[in-house]
Amino acid sequence: MGIAVVGAGFIGNVHSKCTHENPRTRISAVFDTNAEASGLLAVKYSARHATSLDDAIADADLVIIGTPTNTHGDIARLCIKKKTPFLCEKPLDIDLQSAMLTARLAAEAGVFAGMGLNRRFDGQYQALHEAIGSGDLGKVEIILMTSRTQSLPPMEYIAKSGGQLRDKGAHWFDMLCWLTRERPKEIFVHGSCLIDKRFAEHGDVDTATISIEMESGALCQMNFSRRTAYGYDERVEIAGSTGMMQACPPIPINVHHFHGDKITQCGLHPDWYSRIQGTYPAQLDALVDAVEGKGEFPSLIDGLVAETIAVAGNKSLEQRMPVSILYDFDI
Amino acid sequence: MGIAVVGAGFIGNVHSKCTHENPRTRISAVFDTNAEASGLLAVKYSARHATSLDDAIADADLVIIGTPTNTHGDIARLCIKKKTPFLCEKPLDIDLQSAMLTARLAAEAGVFAGMGLNRRFDGQYQALHEAIGSGDLGKVEIILMTSRTQSLPPMEYIAKSGGQLRDKGAHWFDMLCWLTRERPKEIFVHGSCLIDKRFAEHGDVDTATISIEMESGALCQMNFSRRTAYGYDERVEIAGSTGMMQACPPIPINVHHFHGDKITQCGLHPDWYSRIQGTYPAQLDALVDAVEGKGEFPSLIDGLVAETIAVAGNKSLEQRMPVSILYDFDI
Amino acid sequence: MGIAVVGAGFIGNVHSKCTHENPRTRISAVFDTNAEASGLLAVKYSARHATSLDDAIADADLVIIGTPTNTHGDIARLCIKKKTPFLCEKPLDIDLQSAMLTARLAAEAGVFAGMGLNRRFDGQYQALHEAIGSGDLGKVEIILMTSRTQSLPPMEYIAKSGGQLRDKGAHWFDMLCWLTRERPKEIFVHGSCLIDKRFAEHGDVDTATISIEMESGALCQMNFSRRTAYGYDERVEIAGSTGMMQACPPIPINVHHFHGDKITQCGLHPDWYSRIQGTYPAQLDALVDAVEGKGEFPSLIDGLVAETIAVAGNKSLEQRMPVSILYDFDI
Amino acid sequence: MGIAVVGAGFIGNVHSKCTHENPRTRISAVFDTNAEASGLLAVKYSARHATSLDDAIADADLVIIGTPTNTHGDIARLCIKKKTPFLCEKPLDIDLQSAMLTARLAAEAGVFAGMGLNRRFDGQYQALHEAIGSGDLGKVEIILMTSRTQSLPPMEYIAKSGGQLRDKGAHWFDMLCWLTRERPKEIFVHGSCLIDKRFAEHGDVDTATISIEMESGALCQMNFSRRTAYGYDERVEIAGSTGMMQACPPIPINVHHFHGDKITQCGLHPDWYSRIQGTYPAQLDALVDAVEGKGEFPSLIDGLVAETIAVAGNKSLEQRMPVSILYDFDI
Repeated sequence: MGIAVVGAGFIGNVHSKCTHENPRTRISAVFDTNAEASGLLAVKYSARHATSLDDAIADADLVIIGTPTNTHGDIARLCIKKKTPFLCEKPLDIDLQSAMLTARLAAEAGVFAGMGLNRRFDGQYQALHEAIGSGDLGKVEIILMTSRTQSLPPMEYIAKSGGQLRDKGAHWFDMLCWLTRERPKEIFVHGSCLIDKRFAEHGDVDTATISIEMESGALCQMNFSRRTAYGYDERVEIAGSTGMMQACPPIPINVHHFHGDKITQCGLHPDWYSRIQGTYPAQLDALVDAVEGKGEFPSLIDGLVAETIAVAGNKSLEQRMPVSILYDFDI
Repeated sequence: MGIAVVGAGFIGNVHSKCTHENPRTRISAVFDTNAEASGLLAVKYSARHATSLDDAIADADLVIIGTPTNTHGDIARLCIKKKTPFLCEKPLDIDLQSAMLTARLAAEAGVFAGMGLNRRFDGQYQALHEAIGSGDLGKVEIILMTSRTQSLPPMEYIAKSGGQLRDKGAHWFDMLCWLTRERPKEIFVHGSCLIDKRFAEHGDVDTATISIEMESGALCQMNFSRRTAYGYDERVEIAGSTGMMQACPPIPINVHHFHGDKITQCGLHPDWYSRIQGTYPAQLDALVDAVEGKGEFPSLIDGLVAETIAVAGNKSLEQRMPVSILYDFDI
Repeated sequence: MGIAVVGAGFIGNVHSKCTHENPRTRISAVFDTNAEASGLLAVKYSARHATSLDDAIADADLVIIGTPTNTHGDIARLCIKKKTPFLCEKPLDIDLQSAMLTARLAAEAGVFAGMGLNRRFDGQYQALHEAIGSGDLGKVEIILMTSRTQSLPPMEYIAKSGGQLRDKGAHWFDMLCWLTRERPKEIFVHGSCLIDKRFAEHGDVDTATISIEMESGALCQMNFSRRTAYGYDERVEIAGSTGMMQACPPIPINVHHFHGDKITQCGLHPDWYSRIQGTYPAQLDALVDAVEGKGEFPSLIDGLVAETIAVAGNKSLEQRMPVSILYDFDI
Repeated sequence: MGIAVVGAGFIGNVHSKCTHENPRTRISAVFDTNAEASGLLAVKYSARHATSLDDAIADADLVIIGTPTNTHGDIARLCIKKKTPFLCEKPLDIDLQSAMLTARLAAEAGVFAGMGLNRRFDGQYQALHEAIGSGDLGKVEIILMTSRTQSLPPMEYIAKSGGQLRDKGAHWFDMLCWLTRERPKEIFVHGSCLIDKRFAEHGDVDTATISIEMESGALCQMNFSRRTAYGYDERVEIAGSTGMMQACPPIPINVHHFHGDKITQCGLHPDWYSRIQGTYPAQLDALVDAVEGKGEFPSLIDGLVAETIAVAGNKSLEQRMPVSILYDFDI
């Protein structure tokens, strides 16, 4: 399958590497408005350097959109117009209304459109998903999610990230729906600027705790931090009526050092990419399957649901009140 | 030190056993309005079987109150009147106003009065407390607490327990204050009846998630359940600016069975007492020290603080709103 | 059951404590040729201070022998003569021939006689024993045992300990037979003085690796050390045709500290007694059962088997050759 | 760096994949006497399909020899003759004498020659190696190594494998020397046919325990099995005078399932390649460095040492006696 990689930044490089190494796919073209970046990427993988977005899409079986957020919508709509299947990194657009419009266009055109909700393809989370699906845990009662990034992003990134609840949270809101097979009905958020007061200047927080009630009455807690002192930490725990399952953070080097009255292990992954990189090849395999009509893949609607929860969470943070969540997409 | 054990139920037996086995203490008398129960207890430890509460207190250096909640206040006030040091199991009284009155009497009389907040004496939680006190974790940012009991209590217990937030929660609210050296300023609670609908008849929930903002802005999440499918589960995690520490549930029998593509371990403690029993001898040692003027011991005020948070939590649950917490004890 | 505790040293104190705390037993008398030691012990538990060995045994339902090794045989034979059941700390006598004689006398007299092979009563090792007995592990193929003491014993102890293979090894040789339900047929030992050269002066080693072939062909490795830099470390692993099981060293305080690129846990037990103390109350329960005719208990023959293996091991160490083991007790 | 991959079987495919994905290397040619196999490999990586061994070596900067053992020597000597650096999978030749001859030729010709002792490049073992090198563990005293393959190889493989001690053992004998920076002086082996009696027909065993005394007196135990019931299991533990370190088997999917009185985890890697595959890219990086004159790489002498220990081990197994090891290479 020939894949056009649009966007030659960090994530474009990740998708190119996966496409290069997967025996089922090849890079049909790479494109970026920054021609230097896309040129380097083309050379690295001996791929065609497209001269324009149209040129990149022209002969592609599939487009992967890994550009800055504010360009996602336009590129996605061009793919829809050209009836070319695409994967878009989240979010689909800068605001929920635009994203809904794009999702509706894709649905009407019958074009395959996937969202880059790659965490679903992690081995641990797949195991959780299967355990819940198979009934091993019974009826889900409590869900705990921890997501703490090892170090602060640059402040200019914060300014345009849409806030922690959209930027980081959308992944976890999607995970919550995917794992439990249901949606939140109410959200309450506590937030603080404990790490860097400048978050407050952008109406954002660096530390947040989220309390969610699901449609079934199941209860979920998430805690987010923009900086740890001990590496990259993400974890999920699901307690159900017949069992409980934890996806513990993997330890890359499993060596124990016994000395005196202590035992020292090597710590967590140093950053998000080293932790989660294995999801990208797995996501690509599932994507190729889905384009070929086999299996499920995260949809634009899944992306809209996650964004809707994030928006409600931001409202709760602002109003200091619990907020009911409505999913009114008309698609 | 001669200790009068008042109350010959489960907890009275626990205190008697500790007192018997501790070389620093002896049982001066046991008393219960149920003479058969206290008689058996007296025989078991070759202790004096007091004929009345006054008789039990008469020659005691210390009284341990382990009777039903609705009698705590009267017995405590009798100890205060007789200037006899006492430990009272939580809560100090059936409601916050009565408890405040009793605490004020104790303070005015200058009588030593301790609360049975025994979890503070657990080895793991002591390690957490020291790590925070020593600055090893830096400034505290996120606190996570899990408390899930293995099986439902009898419904008649539920009816008079004061609700999960007072019954179970008070221990954890105290732990939170003790560990962080500060108090909550706002609480929000989500609750559900997922296990047994009859909890709703008593205005209670069987599953609850609690979101707390501390005075410093640190954020705390607690999750409570009245029934697990996997034993008794309590855990605490503290993330600070320079490190994170977890008190993981101990595994009583540390054996791993490798078979096929699985590894099976023995599970958690089967119930709360097997998990936490080590705290009682440790609490007794600290209590004897405190009566002798050495070291700190949980006070009636500590108990009042925990109850105040519980009451605010119940209000949040009822009103479905975050509730600010005021500590107005006038003591 | 009235128990006479003979010997008021460390282990006599341990047995007295267990007897005091077990509701099924009481201390009928204590005795030691060191009258000061036995006097203190008698006071501690309000027990009768016997004036002589005969006096101690006179009214005992059971005698526990916890005196120095060179007195075990005489005391055991006195118990046999008086038809009083007894438990003897290992070894039964200073050499194998004397021990065999005593065992034969006990068998002929039909007196209950147990050996203090307390490790069998550890919760982890019981779990291993059950797993093998139930067939969960299939046919046993490889057994690994690690036994490393945290710190060197005094040199005067070394001089009369009988060597590491008898002193420490006998416990593990017994464990091996008990767990596998079979006996070793050949032993080979490598030994070194890596910690303290003075061990060599006593014909002993401070570090030893033992290779054993069982009658069935199953293979066992043991490694012993007289000193670690990281606490007291003992472990057993059994690999069979259908599964493998490990008894991992328990961690007393299960707290994890995440900091930088490391995770630090609290270490192992600091010494053998803190690790293994739980076996003594369990051993006492089994002992009372066995004297009452219920259940099994380690016998003098079990002790002889362990000593026989130890003697063969010492011969291998001396001759630097594998040594076949014969069990020729004539009892 | 242009690399000729000689041998298009399983390991040739592994080396080709690594060479393809490493930005510092490219496949200059592939060759196998089985032209169909090498043809497929050439197509897979768009590589040149050499018509002969000479053709393959002609323009190579480096040759990787991954052919059957009985051809290693001839191909290695051709590389030496052509002064082309090479990596040879172990063993260097079918017997020790031939291997010594080849090693001497390489030394005299001054041609870079590496042995495929890839386990040295595992992250865990690197951590052990560094800990010992840095002195963190003090003086090494006890080394424990476990190597158990998940399932029996085909019997025809057994017939020509040289026995478990050469086939599997050589990797571990090399690890032992590399980690401890010293060599064994005596070896004793116990072996059994517990899994399949046909091993005995080939003078081999399926289960072996190895006892080694190092030059320093440090003691090493290894246990080998040809079949587990629980996946692929390899582990190393080093106890030294100031600390102990364990390389525990990594768990690929770190998920814990709590249910009833049990906790179930996912098991070990299912086979050797999934466990150890990360060593091949790391080995290639080190190889390229070494050819360019930077850093160390396992040498032919390292391979000879490992084979010498294996031969002594086989002699011990046959004679049922400890065997002294002489390293007499004259190179």
